[in-house]
Amino acid sequence: MNNFLNSNMGRLMSAYQDLETRFARMAAVADSLGILEWDSQTTMPSGAAAGRAEQTATLHLVLHGMQTDPRLKELLDQAETEAAMLDPWQMANLREMRRLWRHTVTVPADLVEASSRAVSACEIMWRSARPNNDFAALSPLLNNVLRLKREIGQAKAEAFGCSPYEALLEDYEPGARIVDLDRLFDSLATFLPNFIQSALERQARLPPIEPLVGPFPIEFQKALGECLMRALGFDFSRGRLDVSLHPFCGGARDDVRITTRYNEEDFLPALMGVAHETGHALYEQNRPAEWLNQPVGAARGMSIHESQSLLIEMQACRSKAFMEFLAPLARKCFGGSGAAWSEDALWRRITRVERSFIRVDADEATYSAHVILRYRLEKAMVAGDLSVADLPGAWNEMFQTLLGVAPPDDRRGCLQDIHWPGGAWGYFPTYALGAMTAAQLFESARQSDSDVELGLSRGDFGPLIRWMRREIHSQGCLLSTEMLLRQATGRPLAPEAYCRHLERRYLSA
Amino acid sequence: MNNFLNSNMGRLMSAYQDLETRFARMAAVADSLGILEWDSQTTMPSGAAAGRAEQTATLHLVLHGMQTDPRLKELLDQAETEAAMLDPWQMANLREMRRLWRHTVTVPADLVEASSRAVSACEIMWRSARPNNDFAALSPLLNNVLRLKREIGQAKAEAFGCSPYEALLEDYEPGARIVDLDRLFDSLATFLPNFIQSALERQARLPPIEPLVGPFPIEFQKALGECLMRALGFDFSRGRLDVSLHPFCGGARDDVRITTRYNEEDFLPALMGVAHETGHALYEQNRPAEWLNQPVGAARGMSIHESQSLLIEMQACRSKAFMEFLAPLARKCFGGSGAAWSEDALWRRITRVERSFIRVDADEATYSAHVILRYRLEKAMVAGDLSVADLPGAWNEMFQTLLGVAPPDDRRGCLQDIHWPGGAWGYFPTYALGAMTAAQLFESARQSDSDVELGLSRGDFGPLIRWMRREIHSQGCLLSTEMLLRQATGRPLAPEAYCRHLERRYLSA
Repeated sequence: MNNFLNSNMGRLMSAYQDLETRFARMAAVADSLGILEWDSQTTMPSGAAAGRAEQTATLHLVLHGMQTDPRLKELLDQAETEAAMLDPWQMANLREMRRLWRHTVTVPADLVEASSRAVSACEIMWRSARPNNDFAALSPLLNNVLRLKREIGQAKAEAFGCSPYEALLEDYEPGARIVDLDRLFDSLATFLPNFIQSALERQARLPPIEPLVGPFPIEFQKALGECLMRALGFDFSRGRLDVSLHPFCGGARDDVRITTRYNEEDFLPALMGVAHETGHALYEQNRPAEWLNQPVGAARGMSIHESQSLLIEMQACRSKAFMEFLAPLARKCFGGSGAAWSEDALWRRITRVERSFIRVDADEATYSAHVILRYRLEKAMVAGDLSVADLPGAWNEMFQTLLGVAPPDDRRGCLQDIHWPGGAWGYFPTYALGAMTAAQLFESARQSDSDVELGLSRGDFGPLIRWMRREIHSQGCLLSTEMLLRQATGRPLAPEAYCRHLERRYLSA
Repeated sequence: MNNFLNSNMGRLMSAYQDLETRFARMAAVADSLGILEWDSQTTMPSGAAAGRAEQTATLHLVLHGMQTDPRLKELLDQAETEAAMLDPWQMANLREMRRLWRHTVTVPADLVEASSRAVSACEIMWRSARPNNDFAALSPLLNNVLRLKREIGQAKAEAFGCSPYEALLEDYEPGARIVDLDRLFDSLATFLPNFIQSALERQARLPPIEPLVGPFPIEFQKALGECLMRALGFDFSRGRLDVSLHPFCGGARDDVRITTRYNEEDFLPALMGVAHETGHALYEQNRPAEWLNQPVGAARGMSIHESQSLLIEMQACRSKAFMEFLAPLARKCFGGSGAAWSEDALWRRITRVERSFIRVDADEATYSAHVILRYRLEKAMVAGDLSVADLPGAWNEMFQTLLGVAPPDDRRGCLQDIHWPGGAWGYFPTYALGAMTAAQLFESARQSDSDVELGLSRGDFGPLIRWMRREIHSQGCLLSTEMLLRQATGRPLAPEAYCRHLERRYLSA
């Protein structure tokens, strides 16, 4: 190697490596915020909330200062001119750094601040407007949030070469495009109404299931949950299970903390919640350790993340196969016996279908219809085709079309979610994308290894997790979401595997 | 007010208020570190240690960047020229800001880093050298730490106008001077040997106490500890009690978290530990809320902090008066009965005197002798009058003089504490200063209100805490330690109240 190359190499490494150091620091601050957030939800005494808000606001300010340091652009420019000397992971890392940088710099600081203030005000109003069923009170504040989100979308749209709504989607699902979402969701929206009707009719023909009689002591539920987590391969030396009002998966890399909440009258909701959050946690724990503090080691996007939780909860843990393992274990744990504790009764209990109004309580069969509704409405609002004032009417009409019933009030209609008041526009579609992705991944895993499904009936998740680890977890952000899925399943995301799954479980099982 | 004053006022407020904003941000980062540290000691899974180290190192780096921002000096200079327009609290706040600033800027960054690296290496070696009784292995690394600490002391000595050892003391006990410490400790060192001898003789003449027979279930111990904390006025809406290997008081302002550790064979150590940490916690919880995120709202120094824990543990909770309240409560809590559970037997158990070698296990009567020894030795080492090589010999000789016995080995001698390997030179004296301060404060509180002592026998700490809150807690850093004590007790710190306390409890009770 001659001297010119040598010195060139030196410069290159210093630009790229300087970036790695800077992004590692940002990751450490983000991890600190993750632990503080976990603490706020699980441990913090009530009187500490104001102080905690100052701590997190200050760390967010510190993080923002790191993200907008003018030196970052120079380093990115320099590293990109010399990108040919990077290996594929470094190259993908540089690409992700540029993407993140673009997100922070394309929106003017005053717009970010105005939006964050509008969101705070709207969230506060939402907390009373929802129980009071008072859409009129929320409407002007929600309109304000929408107006600023549209401005943000427009500012980002130019930098990302896409439409404003797609620019908002970029925050949660990089690369998602309306044409693809429309195709996927239109296809699902055609399938679901008849499918739901058929599933309900089939269910109505079956004899009723006997009630499960509790109480189910929390310590037993916790032990059963931890037993499931261990079977799923959760690493307790790098994570925890705790309790919070709203279950979540959080903490930091190498310290993945999930939560659940217990109901002493029924053990299944907490257990299925643990399965769901463990799916998220496995994706967090199994991404490549050497890249975990870099952008390329992050989760690929919200649809892949949701696919991992739904894969564990919906595809694996609510399967008939897994119930062969779970039913005897649960009978032993709680001393249960009789018809209510049979495999079939427990399985019917966790696969019950109902036309309901609240998304977070919806079952697997109807869930995507709730999501498609929100996707269509928020897309129309960001495009300017639907006003906030017309939202309740549009919601109720579309709900009737998709789910066959109409919400009795806005509380159980367009007021139910925190996402829009909270500024998370473009988030909803990832839930349904995650469900479809989970079905497609699970189908491929089953086809590639017959032990995937056989294992479930023995409580052996090894074959499934090994496949998922190799195809998804170990990949970090090396590939785009689309390429990742093509590589793992041989095809881009499509609704067929999901529809096959629903039909198999709800119409023929 | 004319325009000149108006605009002058505007400039003034902007310099001083800019400083307040900056120090509030530093406090928020420090609070974040406090919660992360609490989490590390109580909650964190073992495999998360490396990631946690990165989080705290990054936040320390962020904090250091805030502390050394060149703009700080300009703002301090400007605010000081206009200090006449500040109120007394603001003026004291500005004085404390300058003091803290001086601490960070007087030591060159490379010296700080070299010292921190030497400390890390020495601490690691200490962890094996101590159990192996291997002073020779520690010696070169300890010598390195001492050399760098002396350099730091010299650098600070010029800025603070004091000797290098005093400059190190400044980190823990602002304003402490060798001449005062020598006077106090010489006086105590004269008193203690005969006092300890007399206390032991008196104790030997009493009949032996019957053993307390356990087990004492942890949940009952915890309930009793929380009961004591409530009686002491601990605010659980702004704090917690948890478990850790080494008990401490930490967390954040408005979120004060203490820990203890339980021994199922004896309930008194954990309970007295809770009393001790609650003393620290009350000082944290009761400082003025409006100044809590500013330097003037911080704890005055380590001797006052330690005085608060020793006041609650030693002066109040190990008193005969309090035992009148505690004994029946403990009997009820653990179902205890018989001679071992009498007030007198329990009291004799928590006031037992013994010549022992380990400081952290030492009783109240001998504790200060352990501390004086360390003060004299570290002062001599920093002054260059004692070499690290000669430390074991000097330790053992002085131990014999002060405590009447000689340590059988270095493990139970100069290798026992983490302070010197850990770089905390100048910390030890605050333990004995705290004990003397506690006695002097308690004497004044008793004299000013007879309900202070009467209350203890009814479990009513109200009169004591109200006095302490008014005289100490509410004062923050408004005054110097000396002025604070003069204001509260009418005189500067002296050993007499402490000696009277020891004689009253151990020779005549």
